[in-house]
This record gives sequence, C-alpha cells and structure tokens, in this order.
Amino acid sequence: MTTDSNTDNNTHISPLPLEGDGGRLDSYPFYVEPFHVDFMGRMFLGILGNHLLNAAGNHSQRRGWGITALNENHQTWVLSRLSIELEDMPRQHEHGSIETWVESVIKLFTNRNFAILREDGTPYGYARSIWAMIDLETRKPCDLLTLYDGDIVRYVVQEEEKQCPIAGHGRFKFREPQLVRTIGTYYSDVDINGHINSIKYIEHILDLFPMERFRNQRLQRFEIAYKTESYLGDQLSFYVQEVDENETDVEVRKNVTEDGNGEVVCQAKVRFR
Amino acid sequence: MTTDSNTDNNTHISPLPLEGDGGRLDSYPFYVEPFHVDFMGRMFLGILGNHLLNAAGNHSQRRGWGITALNENHQTWVLSRLSIELEDMPRQHEHGSIETWVESVIKLFTNRNFAILREDGTPYGYARSIWAMIDLETRKPCDLLTLYDGDIVRYVVQEEEKQCPIAGHGRFKFREPQLVRTIGTYYSDVDINGHINSIKYIEHILDLFPMERFRNQRLQRFEIAYKTESYLGDQLSFYVQEVDENETDVEVRKNVTEDGNGEVVCQAKVRFR
Repeated sequence: MTTDSNTDNNTHISPLPLEGDGGRLDSYPFYVEPFHVDFMGRMFLGILGNHLLNAAGNHSQRRGWGITALNENHQTWVLSRLSIELEDMPRQHEHGSIETWVESVIKLFTNRNFAILREDGTPYGYARSIWAMIDLETRKPCDLLTLYDGDIVRYVVQEEEKQCPIAGHGRFKFREPQLVRTIGTYYSDVDINGHINSIKYIEHILDLFPMERFRNQRLQRFEIAYKTESYLGDQLSFYVQEVDENETDVEVRKNVTEDGNGEVVCQAKVRFR
Repeated sequence: MTTDSNTDNNTHISPLPLEGDGGRLDSYPFYVEPFHVDFMGRMFLGILGNHLLNAAGNHSQRRGWGITALNENHQTWVLSRLSIELEDMPRQHEHGSIETWVESVIKLFTNRNFAILREDGTPYGYARSIWAMIDLETRKPCDLLTLYDGDIVRYVVQEEEKQCPIAGHGRFKFREPQLVRTIGTYYSDVDINGHINSIKYIEHILDLFPMERFRNQRLQRFEIAYKTESYLGDQLSFYVQEVDENETDVEVRKNVTEDGNGEVVCQAKVRFR
C-alpha cells in the first residue's frame, strides 16, 4: 500500500523499473512434466492456463495485491477473460517461463498480459486476460483506482513499453449452436471456493474435439469469457457452433431445462491450424 | 550402467550411501498450488500421485534407469500398484518433499517406497508402489536382475535401513459390486503413450464420492491396482462395493457389454477417516 498522492491521476505511470525486485514485470518459470503433455507430447492447454494463473497470482501477491491480502479486505480477483495464442506449444521436458504485467487499469477491470517464453527467451506465444476485483459479500466489482489510493496504477506497463502482439478479446455471436454434450460436475472439478475451477472448463471444452484435430493440427488460439460461476452438482451442457473449418465457438450453459433454457457459464472460441 | 560383477548376487547390497549425489535415496520438492487443492483446501490426491510419479521418474532417470534411457532399449516402466496412506494431507501454499527409494527388486518387479514429508521433515504419510519393466514390442516383462548386469540392485534400500510404516498392498475380492457410473474418455484423459493416464483413474474414482465424504472426513488410504490399459474412446464403467462405512472398493471395467462383461482396467480401495 502506498500513500503516493500522484496516483489519483489515472494516466500516471510510476517511475518503477520494468524488471527486477519491485519492478512492474514478473517472470514465472515452468517445466513441462511427463503427465502434463497430450498424446502428441504437447503441453495441455489447461496446464498452461494454470501456469498463467499462478504467474498472475504471484505477480499480484508480491505487490501487495494478492488474494491473501485481498481476502482480509473481503475482496478477491475474478478472471473475466483469457485469450491465449501460440506459435508453438511447449513440449515434454522443456523449460520455459511466463512473463506477466498489467497493461492497463480501467476503474473496474485490469488488463493483464503474458508472454510465454522458451528457455532462450523466444516466444511460444502470448496471452491476454481481464480481471475484476469484487467484494466477497456484495459480489459487486470494486473501483480499482480508488482502492489502496490507486496503488495498482504504479505497476502499469503501457503498450509502448512492452507489446503483447496478439489480437484482443473477440465478441461471441451465438446463433443456433448445437448441444453436443452434457456432463455432471464432481469433486475434482471444484476449487477451494466451491466453484467449478476455471481451468476445468478449458479441459472440458477441448475434450469436445476428436483426436484427429490434435493429431493433424495444433491449437493456435483459445479464448474464453467467464460469465457466471457453476458449482458442484451443476449439470454443464456444451453447445457448439462451427465458424469455419478451423474455428469453433463453444457455449457452456448450466442446468439446462427441457425447453433448452439454462444460464450461460462461459463462452469460448477455439482455433486450430 | 555398471559392469560390477557382484551384482549377480540378488541379495547384494551396494556400498552406496543412502543420501546425497549418487546415493540410493532422492528427495523431490513440491509446493501446493492454489488450483491443486480441493474445496477443503487439501491437495487433490491425483496431484499428489503425479508428484509421486515424478519423484520416481527423477530417481530412475538420475541412476540411468529412466524412461528416456529405457526407450532407447525399447523398454519402459509400468506402474502396477500404488498405495498411499496419509495422516494428514498437504494444504494450500505448503511446501513439502517426497523421498523415494527402491525397497526390493524381485526379478520382474521392483518395490518402490515414498515418504511424503512436511517442510520440517515430519511425515504427512507414506506410499508403496510396484513397477514392472516391459519390452515395448512384446509387452512382456523384462528380468530386472539380468538387465544392465543387475545394476538396479545397487540402489536397493532394505527395510532395516529405511522403514515405510504403512501396510502393504491388499487383495481385492469383488462379489457383487454395483455399477454406479459409466463415462467416456476424451483428449485430456490421454497421456503421451495414448493410454488413459494413470492419475486420471484416481480422479475419476474419487469423483464417485459425494462432497460430504470430503467435508466430514478425510482420505486416509487409497490403493490402486492397474490391470490393463484403456485408450481414448473407451467407455469406463465404475463398480462399487462398500466394505464398511469408511471403506469402499471400486472396480473399473472398460467397454462393458449389455450382458455386463468388460475387461477389468483397475481396482481401487478407498478409505476415509
């Protein structure tokens, strides 16, 4: 926490260095374990997603914005969007790292970016995410620019300083998506908050695709928009809409009634190449 | 690899030290990540299982018995049994380590033990496992005592030197187990060999239990016997038999026909306390 009075100016960029202790950018190392790869030897996207969330968590934690600190204030971070785009997927036994930084803070949201790097520093790909901070009691979003006197703005790394060269989050337009699978939710789907874990949706969505897609192509881009939480015991129904031969939109709805109504839990776009 | 001629004596114990580089015992560190805990904040057993297999893999690899070396000889390790017993389960943000060693080598099998330790060295619990080495072409087990001139025997840590104070693997007696769930297998269930990943069975088996079991009790012991492989697209049917109010046996069969016949993939015993 800081009492730096400059931070009430939203466009203020602090003089903090980009890297190093107390800088604005963090690096999170990863190693591709044997059980973390698919039948092609490529890291599962869910595992990569988990690493991204860990990198984000560590970055916040070190700057006093971690979940532990927030929970004391009855607040928490909620992931709203995640878009990952990859030139290549890390393979078994490779070492890499994830750089993460906050690109911007807009009252109720932060845009956090990621670079997914090989050991030699070249990129496997990049990711973008949007997070809200909510009050645990009201479930309403908090104004990030007034909290802690706007301390978070000191950590912003603007686009001119550090690029994230992938497209922003897209929009979903579902017309008549087809129901392809309905599954129950169980013990191993649920996180410490009692919600279905945000990574599990990624796994369930990719499980809709046949083996051939992963054998003959590779995942190029995956976008997900989290709309509402689901809980243990909820039934999740997966609706699919082909955009073209390489791109598929997926909508996940919970507890769909006989007449087809059910709340939208998340929406995803999956692109193979 | 060694050409030490003493190793043709099965009971020969090498003069290697217990710990340290080139010793017989390894330590594998772990950290309990946020997405690796259940709704009670306890590490998922599947995650712990994954750490045990990594610890085993590293231990073999460092001694020239790892999968990479074996694959060049068209051989691989196959996990046959795994029994885990816990006084306590690691919790979110805790650091721990897994000690592993080979307790004995019996021609076609090795008995490998594990101690699951807190940061202060006190045990969360222990595990036992049985592994066979098979020829990748014939799928037949190899004689471990003649391979590499019996080099593996040098690494044995007999029970007098290092105890694993939990019961050995039990026997399963299925009488009339009840079918409780049948599931498909998908992309995220499959490992690099195209098999359903041995950890995924653990997750699917624990998913059979209601939330209340995990809320009001904790997992005390989990045993699994792997019988045959299953593959992407196989249907897995879960048969359950209550032993007493705290203990349940589970049998997993694949592609069960209408008259109830299907090959047994694995059997498990789950004990809560």
